[in-house]
Amino acid sequence: MAEKKLVEAITSMGEDFAQWYTDVVKKAELIEYSSVKGCMILRPNGYAIWEMIQKELDRRFKETGVENVYMPMFIPESLLQKEKDHVEGFAPEVAWVTHGGATELAERLCVRPTSETLFCDLYSNIVQSYRDLPKLYNQWCSVCRWEKTTRPFLRSSEFLWQEGHTAHATAEEAEEKTIEMLNLYAKFCEEVLAIPMIKGRKTDKEKFAGAKATYTIEALMHDGKALQSGTSHNFGDGFAKAFDIQYTDKDNKLKYVHQTSWGMSTRLIGAVIMVHGDDSGLVLPPMVAPVQIMIVPIMQKKEGVLEKAAELAETLSNYRVKVDDTDKSPGWKFAEQEVRGIPLRVEIGPKDIEANQAVIVRRDTREKIVVSLDEINDKIGEVLVTMQAEMLERARQHRDEHTTTAATYEEFKDAVENKPGFIKAMWCGDEACELKIKEDTTATSRCMPFVQETLSDKCVCCGKPAKTMVYWGKAY
Amino acid sequence: MAEKKLVEAITSMGEDFAQWYTDVVKKAELIEYSSVKGCMILRPNGYAIWEMIQKELDRRFKETGVENVYMPMFIPESLLQKEKDHVEGFAPEVAWVTHGGATELAERLCVRPTSETLFCDLYSNIVQSYRDLPKLYNQWCSVCRWEKTTRPFLRSSEFLWQEGHTAHATAEEAEEKTIEMLNLYAKFCEEVLAIPMIKGRKTDKEKFAGAKATYTIEALMHDGKALQSGTSHNFGDGFAKAFDIQYTDKDNKLKYVHQTSWGMSTRLIGAVIMVHGDDSGLVLPPMVAPVQIMIVPIMQKKEGVLEKAAELAETLSNYRVKVDDTDKSPGWKFAEQEVRGIPLRVEIGPKDIEANQAVIVRRDTREKIVVSLDEINDKIGEVLVTMQAEMLERARQHRDEHTTTAATYEEFKDAVENKPGFIKAMWCGDEACELKIKEDTTATSRCMPFVQETLSDKCVCCGKPAKTMVYWGKAY
Repeated sequence: MAEKKLVEAITSMGEDFAQWYTDVVKKAELIEYSSVKGCMILRPNGYAIWEMIQKELDRRFKETGVENVYMPMFIPESLLQKEKDHVEGFAPEVAWVTHGGATELAERLCVRPTSETLFCDLYSNIVQSYRDLPKLYNQWCSVCRWEKTTRPFLRSSEFLWQEGHTAHATAEEAEEKTIEMLNLYAKFCEEVLAIPMIKGRKTDKEKFAGAKATYTIEALMHDGKALQSGTSHNFGDGFAKAFDIQYTDKDNKLKYVHQTSWGMSTRLIGAVIMVHGDDSGLVLPPMVAPVQIMIVPIMQKKEGVLEKAAELAETLSNYRVKVDDTDKSPGWKFAEQEVRGIPLRVEIGPKDIEANQAVIVRRDTREKIVVSLDEINDKIGEVLVTMQAEMLERARQHRDEHTTTAATYEEFKDAVENKPGFIKAMWCGDEACELKIKEDTTATSRCMPFVQETLSDKCVCCGKPAKTMVYWGKAY
Repeated sequence: MAEKKLVEAITSMGEDFAQWYTDVVKKAELIEYSSVKGCMILRPNGYAIWEMIQKELDRRFKETGVENVYMPMFIPESLLQKEKDHVEGFAPEVAWVTHGGATELAERLCVRPTSETLFCDLYSNIVQSYRDLPKLYNQWCSVCRWEKTTRPFLRSSEFLWQEGHTAHATAEEAEEKTIEMLNLYAKFCEEVLAIPMIKGRKTDKEKFAGAKATYTIEALMHDGKALQSGTSHNFGDGFAKAFDIQYTDKDNKLKYVHQTSWGMSTRLIGAVIMVHGDDSGLVLPPMVAPVQIMIVPIMQKKEGVLEKAAELAETLSNYRVKVDDTDKSPGWKFAEQEVRGIPLRVEIGPKDIEANQAVIVRRDTREKIVVSLDEINDKIGEVLVTMQAEMLERARQHRDEHTTTAATYEEFKDAVENKPGFIKAMWCGDEACELKIKEDTTATSRCMPFVQETLSDKCVCCGKPAKTMVYWGKAY
């Protein structure tokens, strides 16, 4: 009865996907709304997922030679204005600090929406010689973009992220790094979050303010909408010229550096929810689950049950395991853990103890596996690996089944209307067609994928000769 | 010659301690000044130390049941004003956001100087029953306090820290937690940073804005000045009443929660520098050193030397080890590593290889230890442990040698003038004496230590009956 209520409190996906999302985020206690408009509170269950992401991503960054730093959270207005495209892109959505205590500041400071300008300012001071290159810096911080409509994890006025900023001697090296980091992102999402990604390049219309080229990884959510999940930008020497970042090369000539930046954010948590979740709540891939296994003692007041559960937790301590020994009913505990998306539940009661066994229940398939306590450690390892792999595979299948090819504009419009998902279609390269498609259908160009196909020789919109295949879709 | 220059660039401690500090911070590449007044950039060498502190402290927090969260960086003005003492303490030094993009905000937001008000707001929403208690939340973030004069790590307009905020059912539990966290801080500083701490309670004059009681750990720097290194506050139910945080107790009555907060910051890096540093630069205790061992190949162009150095790094991979195989001279490398404070240098050249040995050099004592390559792994472990212990012992000795007892006001004034360090003296408990002492001598009350002594029965200032022994000193 009580457990039914807990699950009933979640709107079903089919009925209202947006409400389902909001319900899951709240019922799983990932976030709480705050008194600050557009800002959310990451509660322990939500922040713990971010810590898992951070730890694994940081390890992978460091393996490639990246070093962490911390830059000021404020950017003086004059610094923000140094690169023309960049300021135009960000000025409309920044928060401005005008007073320190009771004193009005001589120059306004914006709360960083991103830190290209600060990194450029630093590099202009510390890069002198080719020996100082490359600089491979990253920071973990919060940034602020004043958003009119906000949604937990997907769009909020403040959010947590990492931003990498690198400076290189040559254009080739910068391009290589841009792609390397995009690949690292995609691999991380597939291996850890079990989310397959389309890798590609953004059109000029969609690229980052001030970038020469923006690369992106795009994922498909359960409702058929796309989510831009990470971006990697090649700045060429544009910022270097605006900020005068020059180095003396081996040939003794002064040269401008070439730069990149790349970022992923708490938005990834939104992706995990919308790719893997179901009508009972969150489903966390084992690799990113702060708690992988919850042991639920059955008839825990009977002598020896709690002791055995604790013993089992000890046996499984090479995983992230907990025992739920609260005085709630098992049914209530099951429902709570389902909402929270804990990958495996292990039930152990008097009868199991007698039979020297326990019951493993997978969160994703609800499959029940009876296993001997002598073999449970290895078995759990296997189940976690299988579950992680199958979750990725299911997500891939869902994406592929929701990817349509459109050869004509009629087909395109029909697909946007009736087949939620990605649409692959040819494009002439003209921004006018991009704008027309957006106006006619609300679909936007997601990316020009690295893996190209020739679907036809004509632009799906204007019929002129096509240059590129593009992934299109409605997006978050 | 070159290496001499590198070291000469550091002013000697004896000549000008403040300049020495600034030189070390810059030459060790811990920080860089930024274009934002009062804000500093934490460079890789500096941030890596913070990461070490964070990792170990976070582990210790979690062992006590603390969970991490993330709160918004902004506080609406009306929220900040809910607790009277608190707003009075912080309003003069906060940064105010007045505009989002081009639009003026309906209500000003301050950039958090600390987050009591936000946590109270959250707790008032999520705490209903005794079952919801205790709440043991912590966050790692940056905070902003508009400072007029700033110094790297010690005082800056923005700094990194952690702030723990807990809510409890009873006053006793809150007091217990306040002390538990202070003890955790002191233990961490002694065990990891090799800095001995005086634990005690702040006088009412020095306590946190809004707190019932503030406890502190105080360290003595090399120049005899004190550094407040961490604080833990018991708020009683003051904030709970201001924010209406009530829970239904087991007896079915509505009761106010009792709260605590506690914080440590990047200031700890300043403490490490000023307790352990010497005229050649930084000296890092092994436990907190991002790189514990730097292997320097001697005559590295000779065949086999670089290979042997890499092999040695492999052997020592259970420590944090690196090989400096750049094309700089060994002397330059030695000097660089001394400035950066790397605990151990290991030299290995053709003659060493022939003799199957290497030379270990301790950064703190410069002791040279010749060791067989067959035993180097164990030996390094021993040396690191010894070095860590001896650094703590030396710091303790320095502090004890620079702690004076003053029975009369003449002795007190003489001590402030001529004996840099802590002064132990009796106090009547009257704020007037605290103020007079500060005015006459610039020394402030550091704390009323937990370990009390009866030095005399009279207040060192007014001669009236003494209540407490107080540690006094000039402070950062």
